[in-house]
Amino acid sequence: MGKKEKQFVAEITPMEVDFAQWYTDVILKTDLVDYSPVKGFMVIKPYGYAIWENIQQYMDKRFKDTGHKNCYFPLLIPESLLQKEAEHVEGFAPEVAWVTHGGKEELAERLCVRPTSETIICEMYSRWLKSYRDLPFLYNQWCSVVRWEKSTRPFLRTSEFLWQEGHTLHETYDEAQEETLRMLEIYKQTAEELLAMPVVTGQKSEKEKFAGAYATYTMEALMHDGKALQAGTSHNLGQHFTTAFNITYLDRDGELKNPYHTSWGVSTRLIGGLIMVHGDNRGLVLPPRVAPTQVVIVPIAAHKGGVMERTMELFSELKNSYRVELDDRENYSPGWKFNEWEMKGVPIRVEIGPKDIENGQAILFRRDTLEKETVALEDLSGRVQTLLDEIHNNMLYKAKMMRDEKTYYVNNFEEMKELMKTKPGFVKAMWCQERECEDKIKEGTGITVRCLPFEQEKLGDTCAFCEKPAHKMAYFAKAY
Amino acid sequence: MGKKEKQFVAEITPMEVDFAQWYTDVILKTDLVDYSPVKGFMVIKPYGYAIWENIQQYMDKRFKDTGHKNCYFPLLIPESLLQKEAEHVEGFAPEVAWVTHGGKEELAERLCVRPTSETIICEMYSRWLKSYRDLPFLYNQWCSVVRWEKSTRPFLRTSEFLWQEGHTLHETYDEAQEETLRMLEIYKQTAEELLAMPVVTGQKSEKEKFAGAYATYTMEALMHDGKALQAGTSHNLGQHFTTAFNITYLDRDGELKNPYHTSWGVSTRLIGGLIMVHGDNRGLVLPPRVAPTQVVIVPIAAHKGGVMERTMELFSELKNSYRVELDDRENYSPGWKFNEWEMKGVPIRVEIGPKDIENGQAILFRRDTLEKETVALEDLSGRVQTLLDEIHNNMLYKAKMMRDEKTYYVNNFEEMKELMKTKPGFVKAMWCQERECEDKIKEGTGITVRCLPFEQEKLGDTCAFCEKPAHKMAYFAKAY
Ligand SMILES: [Zn+2]
Ligand SMILES: [Zn+2]
Repeated sequence: MGKKEKQFVAEITPMEVDFAQWYTDVILKTDLVDYSPVKGFMVIKPYGYAIWENIQQYMDKRFKDTGHKNCYFPLLIPESLLQKEAEHVEGFAPEVAWVTHGGKEELAERLCVRPTSETIICEMYSRWLKSYRDLPFLYNQWCSVVRWEKSTRPFLRTSEFLWQEGHTLHETYDEAQEETLRMLEIYKQTAEELLAMPVVTGQKSEKEKFAGAYATYTMEALMHDGKALQAGTSHNLGQHFTTAFNITYLDRDGELKNPYHTSWGVSTRLIGGLIMVHGDNRGLVLPPRVAPTQVVIVPIAAHKGGVMERTMELFSELKNSYRVELDDRENYSPGWKFNEWEMKGVPIRVEIGPKDIENGQAILFRRDTLEKETVALEDLSGRVQTLLDEIHNNMLYKAKMMRDEKTYYVNNFEEMKELMKTKPGFVKAMWCQERECEDKIKEGTGITVRCLPFEQEKLGDTCAFCEKPAHKMAYFAKAY
Repeated sequence: MGKKEKQFVAEITPMEVDFAQWYTDVILKTDLVDYSPVKGFMVIKPYGYAIWENIQQYMDKRFKDTGHKNCYFPLLIPESLLQKEAEHVEGFAPEVAWVTHGGKEELAERLCVRPTSETIICEMYSRWLKSYRDLPFLYNQWCSVVRWEKSTRPFLRTSEFLWQEGHTLHETYDEAQEETLRMLEIYKQTAEELLAMPVVTGQKSEKEKFAGAYATYTMEALMHDGKALQAGTSHNLGQHFTTAFNITYLDRDGELKNPYHTSWGVSTRLIGGLIMVHGDNRGLVLPPRVAPTQVVIVPIAAHKGGVMERTMELFSELKNSYRVELDDRENYSPGWKFNEWEMKGVPIRVEIGPKDIENGQAILFRRDTLEKETVALEDLSGRVQTLLDEIHNNMLYKAKMMRDEKTYYVNNFEEMKELMKTKPGFVKAMWCQERECEDKIKEGTGITVRCLPFEQEKLGDTCAFCEKPAHKMAYFAKAY
């Protein structure tokens, strides 16, 4: 390790020493994000926002390909609307920001800054829906939401975050259920195919489900520190809201009916997830398909004859197919640049100097394995394409290995508590699904049911914790 | 005019009868937008939002091509930050929404929902900027903003709207001025090349400039009713904010200096503009490059053998190159569909029936001129491309003609007042640029200085209104 590399690495606390500090060091030093003057609110800097734009672009296309359209609903929601669905208001009222004044005038009714938009959207849907012919409603919204949080961490939990929220209406329960699972599957594909982040999918417990939902489905990812991250949720809302908001339609049989309802969302939290799944002690390791810069070109001995010329040619060529940066800063050494771009997690670095040009080649360095290879200049663009795919596949594979290593089975509560102290991770166990049992597990340990996975394993007939009959296996973990 | 057509048209108040009602009828009946339960806040429905997405996509590319990056700053701004620049707080304080409570707790300091983000962004820039090497800062944000308005109209003036706001820092005044004008030029190109909406560009008067700006530049479009619409503004903010927020950098000469600053924005107001420039008594006429649906295919006698088959083939073919809808609804007649899609302003309609198929042809109907042409099926896709361009060019040309017809010269105040009563439009006149004169013109007439245009004409040496010396010609109008 050279002197400069040591200096860079020294700026990032090793994750084994203090994982939370490692995370903070990485997000701040790589310019993803910054704290703002309002406690709990973050500024997403260009490097972080570009990741979000790539996520948006991928997902928005998937949403549209499955028939959804975007729209925009108001930021502010009247208090009376929030109160229309009882469980919902109970769930969200403690964490909403209230607007009480417009200009110098006090408002007759308080308005909350949307924590999520079910209520305002249902109010509008009740005006729009007339006939079964209008169904399904398949709408989505990209926006920011505000939830007043006491303890925050950029991307993972902040008082404001960016997200998308889909809200759909259907004629039948089955169609709503199908939609709920279809969108969860798109989320899973986003996690795995775009972010190289493996996830477990399944259903939330009654305690952990969305306020007002009939059933909530989730995808859960495991972070380097053995804690789980709820990375996206999809809710079958049944007729709870459509009844409360009096959304009706004239059905084929001439009867007025309440439609079935779903909502689903992912947020900038995904960025926190990919950092904590892929990052290492040198900093970020960005999945190639969302990396704002996929390839950085660093010329060596740039002042020597022909180097900048050939570098510029290469830059022009690669720019047509990839997101490429040319680092031609004169006041930094190549070594400095190497370390900075490694910290920023750029998947591929191209090094090109006088000797390389003589030999008609360049060096490719890959961030995920830290390996170098020499490639003929005429093959370079093609090799970058295959290498980006290789890096993606390797990152997904490594993350799966990491997760599997940190996934355990237990037979009782004591085993689980002991494990969580020494080797935190996912715990699989048979579970009775009773609220009392769930509360007891969480109390004092912070361990929660992450989900009842779709992929079940039959480990026994009784709950590992209370010995009541159990029909399902659940995933347990400490979670963000 | 057939019976059904009459029925459709009857639903839209003719613009000559009541322009404001015509606008309201059009935006509601074409499903662009809806009112929300919160007074002054609108819901942008999918058909309206898709227009905004097309505007965003075009502009975002232009911003990135000129070196700008996107980021995201918090929605809520502490009151103390808003107060740091005196003119700014005076301009915006009367129209901001105040958050006073988070959950159940009263906040120690009120937070305003951003009316614009200069203050919070300057606060962050003051932390980020260190050296001249960091300059320029070229950042943009897509978001919603809230300004408490007493009198609102969807897209034109609402208490919440969607927009983009660019915020840049530069070493020199000249660079900032160059940036200010560069972005105004991109706005003008967006208006004309994307929206087919001609604009006059120029500088705002001292009275009309942005609160805290050194100089504000604007693009102004003329609506069908002879009123002007400020469609986008670009501000040279000088060092007002960078001084107030203590943004400094270490310059090449080792001195600490305040950078120069710009901001610029356009909003969903552009949608209101294109409606009022292009629409007619049948409804919307959408510019082809932003129309959510560029081509609608309506099969005639769809039940007859081969019609749906050939229609589907055509649909598949056109879908590769254009935004196309196939209207295969069985419970509506072709006539009904024609009228509905005309109202919704779709640029091209393709009609295809048994006889057309026999003759290997289809009918193309263009919304802007209401003309039909017969085209051989094998030439259809190519013809659609040229026709979309022809429609764009024709719409821009017609809008220019309309504007020029409604643009007048006056020599005194009486002439202007008389004109505005009988033939509202743009009025060109020499003007002294004094605040007192400007106030007198506005008082009782509502006529404002729209801009001192870049394209000047020398009409005389004295102000047409107060006879003081005048060096500039200005545009005057009533405005939205
Ligand atoms: Zn149990
Ligand atoms: Zn005057």
